[in-house]
Amino acid sequence: MSAKTIRTVIIGASGYTGGDFLRLAHTHPNIKITGLIANTHAGKPVGDVFPHLMFADLPDMVKADEINWQSVDAAICGLPHGTAQDIIARLPAHVKIIDMSADFRLRDVQTYTDWYGRSHDHPDLYQEVAYGLSEHNREAIKQARIVACPGCYPTAVLMALLPLVQSSTIETDNIILDAKSGVSGAGRAPKQNTLFCETGEGLSPYAIGNHRHTPEIEQEVNKVAKGTDIQVNFTPHLVPMSRGELITCHLTLANGKTIDDARAALTTAYQEEPFVRVVAEGMVPGTQHVRGSNHCLIGLFKARPKNQIIVISTIDNLVKGSAGQALQNFNIAFGMKETLGLEQLPLFP
Amino acid sequence: MSAKTIRTVIIGASGYTGGDFLRLAHTHPNIKITGLIANTHAGKPVGDVFPHLMFADLPDMVKADEINWQSVDAAICGLPHGTAQDIIARLPAHVKIIDMSADFRLRDVQTYTDWYGRSHDHPDLYQEVAYGLSEHNREAIKQARIVACPGCYPTAVLMALLPLVQSSTIETDNIILDAKSGVSGAGRAPKQNTLFCETGEGLSPYAIGNHRHTPEIEQEVNKVAKGTDIQVNFTPHLVPMSRGELITCHLTLANGKTIDDARAALTTAYQEEPFVRVVAEGMVPGTQHVRGSNHCLIGLFKARPKNQIIVISTIDNLVKGSAGQALQNFNIAFGMKETLGLEQLPLFP
Amino acid sequence: MSAKTIRTVIIGASGYTGGDFLRLAHTHPNIKITGLIANTHAGKPVGDVFPHLMFADLPDMVKADEINWQSVDAAICGLPHGTAQDIIARLPAHVKIIDMSADFRLRDVQTYTDWYGRSHDHPDLYQEVAYGLSEHNREAIKQARIVACPGCYPTAVLMALLPLVQSSTIETDNIILDAKSGVSGAGRAPKQNTLFCETGEGLSPYAIGNHRHTPEIEQEVNKVAKGTDIQVNFTPHLVPMSRGELITCHLTLANGKTIDDARAALTTAYQEEPFVRVVAEGMVPGTQHVRGSNHCLIGLFKARPKNQIIVISTIDNLVKGSAGQALQNFNIAFGMKETLGLEQLPLFP
Amino acid sequence: MSAKTIRTVIIGASGYTGGDFLRLAHTHPNIKITGLIANTHAGKPVGDVFPHLMFADLPDMVKADEINWQSVDAAICGLPHGTAQDIIARLPAHVKIIDMSADFRLRDVQTYTDWYGRSHDHPDLYQEVAYGLSEHNREAIKQARIVACPGCYPTAVLMALLPLVQSSTIETDNIILDAKSGVSGAGRAPKQNTLFCETGEGLSPYAIGNHRHTPEIEQEVNKVAKGTDIQVNFTPHLVPMSRGELITCHLTLANGKTIDDARAALTTAYQEEPFVRVVAEGMVPGTQHVRGSNHCLIGLFKARPKNQIIVISTIDNLVKGSAGQALQNFNIAFGMKETLGLEQLPLFP
Repeated sequence: MSAKTIRTVIIGASGYTGGDFLRLAHTHPNIKITGLIANTHAGKPVGDVFPHLMFADLPDMVKADEINWQSVDAAICGLPHGTAQDIIARLPAHVKIIDMSADFRLRDVQTYTDWYGRSHDHPDLYQEVAYGLSEHNREAIKQARIVACPGCYPTAVLMALLPLVQSSTIETDNIILDAKSGVSGAGRAPKQNTLFCETGEGLSPYAIGNHRHTPEIEQEVNKVAKGTDIQVNFTPHLVPMSRGELITCHLTLANGKTIDDARAALTTAYQEEPFVRVVAEGMVPGTQHVRGSNHCLIGLFKARPKNQIIVISTIDNLVKGSAGQALQNFNIAFGMKETLGLEQLPLFP
Repeated sequence: MSAKTIRTVIIGASGYTGGDFLRLAHTHPNIKITGLIANTHAGKPVGDVFPHLMFADLPDMVKADEINWQSVDAAICGLPHGTAQDIIARLPAHVKIIDMSADFRLRDVQTYTDWYGRSHDHPDLYQEVAYGLSEHNREAIKQARIVACPGCYPTAVLMALLPLVQSSTIETDNIILDAKSGVSGAGRAPKQNTLFCETGEGLSPYAIGNHRHTPEIEQEVNKVAKGTDIQVNFTPHLVPMSRGELITCHLTLANGKTIDDARAALTTAYQEEPFVRVVAEGMVPGTQHVRGSNHCLIGLFKARPKNQIIVISTIDNLVKGSAGQALQNFNIAFGMKETLGLEQLPLFP
Repeated sequence: MSAKTIRTVIIGASGYTGGDFLRLAHTHPNIKITGLIANTHAGKPVGDVFPHLMFADLPDMVKADEINWQSVDAAICGLPHGTAQDIIARLPAHVKIIDMSADFRLRDVQTYTDWYGRSHDHPDLYQEVAYGLSEHNREAIKQARIVACPGCYPTAVLMALLPLVQSSTIETDNIILDAKSGVSGAGRAPKQNTLFCETGEGLSPYAIGNHRHTPEIEQEVNKVAKGTDIQVNFTPHLVPMSRGELITCHLTLANGKTIDDARAALTTAYQEEPFVRVVAEGMVPGTQHVRGSNHCLIGLFKARPKNQIIVISTIDNLVKGSAGQALQNFNIAFGMKETLGLEQLPLFP
Repeated sequence: MSAKTIRTVIIGASGYTGGDFLRLAHTHPNIKITGLIANTHAGKPVGDVFPHLMFADLPDMVKADEINWQSVDAAICGLPHGTAQDIIARLPAHVKIIDMSADFRLRDVQTYTDWYGRSHDHPDLYQEVAYGLSEHNREAIKQARIVACPGCYPTAVLMALLPLVQSSTIETDNIILDAKSGVSGAGRAPKQNTLFCETGEGLSPYAIGNHRHTPEIEQEVNKVAKGTDIQVNFTPHLVPMSRGELITCHLTLANGKTIDDARAALTTAYQEEPFVRVVAEGMVPGTQHVRGSNHCLIGLFKARPKNQIIVISTIDNLVKGSAGQALQNFNIAFGMKETLGLEQLPLFP
């Protein structure tokens, strides 16, 4: 293990993803948090917005322009899309950037505009960007200056789909992704629909057929799909829990393929991975089994109709779906052991 | 409105479905609860097992053999399968029976044995049974002595599927039913997997590909499907809420059919129904919108892949999915106004 | 029962208390909702803001100035304090007003200013106001033009305290009211601290020693306390549930008094009341036993230290704590049977 | 830091406290888990009962008699009371025992019998026992062979009370402890009252005036109370959350004492402690701020009545209230750094 210390600044320290990065980084031997940017809370200790971080030895929050970037090695960006690209474009070239926003995930600028409703003002930066699905893009992440961490849904979906599509185990014209997420995915800004009383004791789908993570999923699936133009049915649901994400992938086996082939493709893909498990037959993954950790659990099941299978993929949306994968990418980018800061087991119950 | 009084006994009064029938019956002008059977609680007031019912004027709980069936007009059975058929077989012929158990739902005795793991001891009774999906089987319910109320999942599924299959609007070889339910569906008997700590803050699928409601769904869909032998992909999930059920039906339009045809089929089927609404375009049904009521909401959405649609159906699993539909069937069976005792609006938040 | 119809307008129809009044009024035989005021949603059907009310036959929402008050008999006000008094002051004299806001609860204008941080602009109206704790102020409610419905906490507290203080059963210098409430008490306006992720899986006290319901409790307790100037320790906590309120009153018996005297005082006070029960010894009231209903449960328990007792009082904060008591007061004010529209049993689970 | 490895066996590995010890021990550099005793699950991998632990490198579960105690240094006991004392009595003398059960907490055997309803069969062992409230009993813990870890409630209560009683800052005849706990405190054995549907969306007190943690609190408070015989009003409530415990202590200042004296007593007591914080004025501790961590937060507030104060103490009942304090005691007992394995920050949201 390297003895080097990475001086790290969090941009957007008062949001859930920024806060969760701080939680994880606390046990990382090589990270020194030297700046916390949270414009509306500048001047306050982090304990004022996140009392659970009060025990950590952290600097007070500041405005963006109070940071001296010359003495910073890495920036973790937890801002909303749009805001993120502007501040990222202004950072000096020596700073490695791990971006948890959506701004650099979509390679096609027109697609970004279509789905995010605004222009992309920094397409020139794309040449320095790697898509940060850690297990599937390590080499690019190592080389890049900017890592665009995937959305939470794409992470959970792609962990299941990529090995199956790559190995031509499944048909690509009937990919149905029934997704369920805890409420933290909606962020910390007050909105009526994420109030306790609106989401508690209730489940509802949302953004049916038009969720912004859809083009991101399709972009990555098509990369490995050998020439076809795949469109997916992605249907998310809001679940009355804070953390957790589970995708029920309803898939059709390709001609001549079996569920054992599907299991083999996934098992092979992840057998050396520290954070991914294809669970034993009969075990059913649930979000409560990964809560708080960077783990991803995948299970395969026969559906009743012939040639249909169900693949379950579950992660903690704030960890493997955001701050944890950001830290994993940070470790990759700085050439450190990939599990540093991520050794914690899930919290259950 | 009729002035007659139906003397009614609840069999299994200490379970959730029995308790919810009592809640609803409390505002029914023609029901007099004359007996509450709950063997392990015999001798106690109902408030001991259900404090929320303490304000109702109800008899104490008794053992089954303490009831004088000669002065009883109707029995509501909230027992588990197996136990239910035995007691039902012993009731005198003048008693109308509304059975919320699974014992008389499957017409084929072998299918019952295969899925419920025990023989059916009273197949002779089937000739007196009607399947109690109220909106789709009124005439039979009126004639029958025993009404076999559907399972909660089949209710929510069939409300969406039957008009679509009947009108040949959808393909029948790619019916994917991704189901989500609150925990009350698992009943009140203590089990580790329904403890607060096991299900709270977590979502997980269960019984993937082999849930007992699957053959019931297939039986009813095949009745209207004109000769094909439909199998469905039914995948249920447990959601951290007490009540509520939502089915996300991923469907493929039949050749030449559009989502407008699907909407028309559903709207036509339910336009006169007091408990069912096909919601306006853009509105997304959620379980919190039906909680505590006998309502069923249905919404239709385009999926991204061509010719695929998503139909959402949501109910309260204990009401339209059990006790409420039982009361609706009770009203039908006794020739009363179908909405009696069921006028309550949902409880939100 | 009277056959008259009360033409009723809801002011603030898109908030939780307004919505819950509509739910309850739906089964009231004499209420006709003729107007729904919700300025920011004017022109929309109520189902747009409250999908659970979509089955009710209700007019679209309008702005305040669109109402023709000449054809209105009653106004139910669900606005926040401050806003409420201004609109109430403009209503014509023939309209009975049931006000669920805090604006007319405190008789002393200076106290109002001290605790609510603004002047009271309509002190002249006080002569027409009755404090709407239904069971304890029926005669005044019948006479008044404006009924100031109590706060949710004062309702639950006073139901327990008033008979004990009035009968001199307890010491008045050591009244400790440890209160717990669901999140709906904080209203429907988006705030960070009532987001699902902030309150879910967590319990915290708030407004310790300075909650605005404190002077209201003291005002009413002092009315019956025979000359002393009682101050109470009122400490509220936010509980991860939508509805429900429970007060744990830690009390000291007056010299020579016993817990049986306390039980007798409460039992006597409420023996004829349709919505209140002093529960049997050994039964412990919980919020889940009153959810959705206008019920109040009270239980008494010996504390371990000599002469100390614990009195538990629980209500649904949106029903007996707001919309339900408003409807109860409406019934009293219009000389109707007090239980109309409030016959529903609690929803459990 | 020592390089020594402590070979550790968990007795009762399939319960919540056993499972949480394993989660924490996973990041401890000196613990090697060499045995997991869970009689009813013997032969299975731990992932079968705790899927969240599947990533840890742990031995399969075994029966108690399969352990070779000669190669074991420490036993962590997570059994229920009664069962615990029997197995502890049979362990060889070289094994250090950290007992999370109630069996050795009460020094007076008659008191144990009175409150736990069974005799104590191993009173001889008491001479080797230390009460494991880490911050207040370090020296004894270091010397003892058996550490009796406190109950969750006594832990949270005593952290607040001991410095106040010891410094004579508060009156001891009016100590009111209004306690709130998540459901995990009730354990993992299936019981009706801890089902999701029974506790979700509801709050209720329980064991009012007779909870078994009461004599334990009184025993420890009286140790420091200089001759008085203190009895406390301890009233626990069940909250719809899995983890977390918060005590609202309603206290009366001793003659001449102020809230500043109380704050000083607590601040002084804990200023060097790694796991305890007296929070800044104006900050209100909540259970969500300590979830998953070994932290204890304490806040002080003026009550409205003269000379009354409110002291809030909050912990995670499974961590500082059980497994975390057990690990802290383990570290003390083996002369290691007290924070080992306990560096994790709380999980929020």
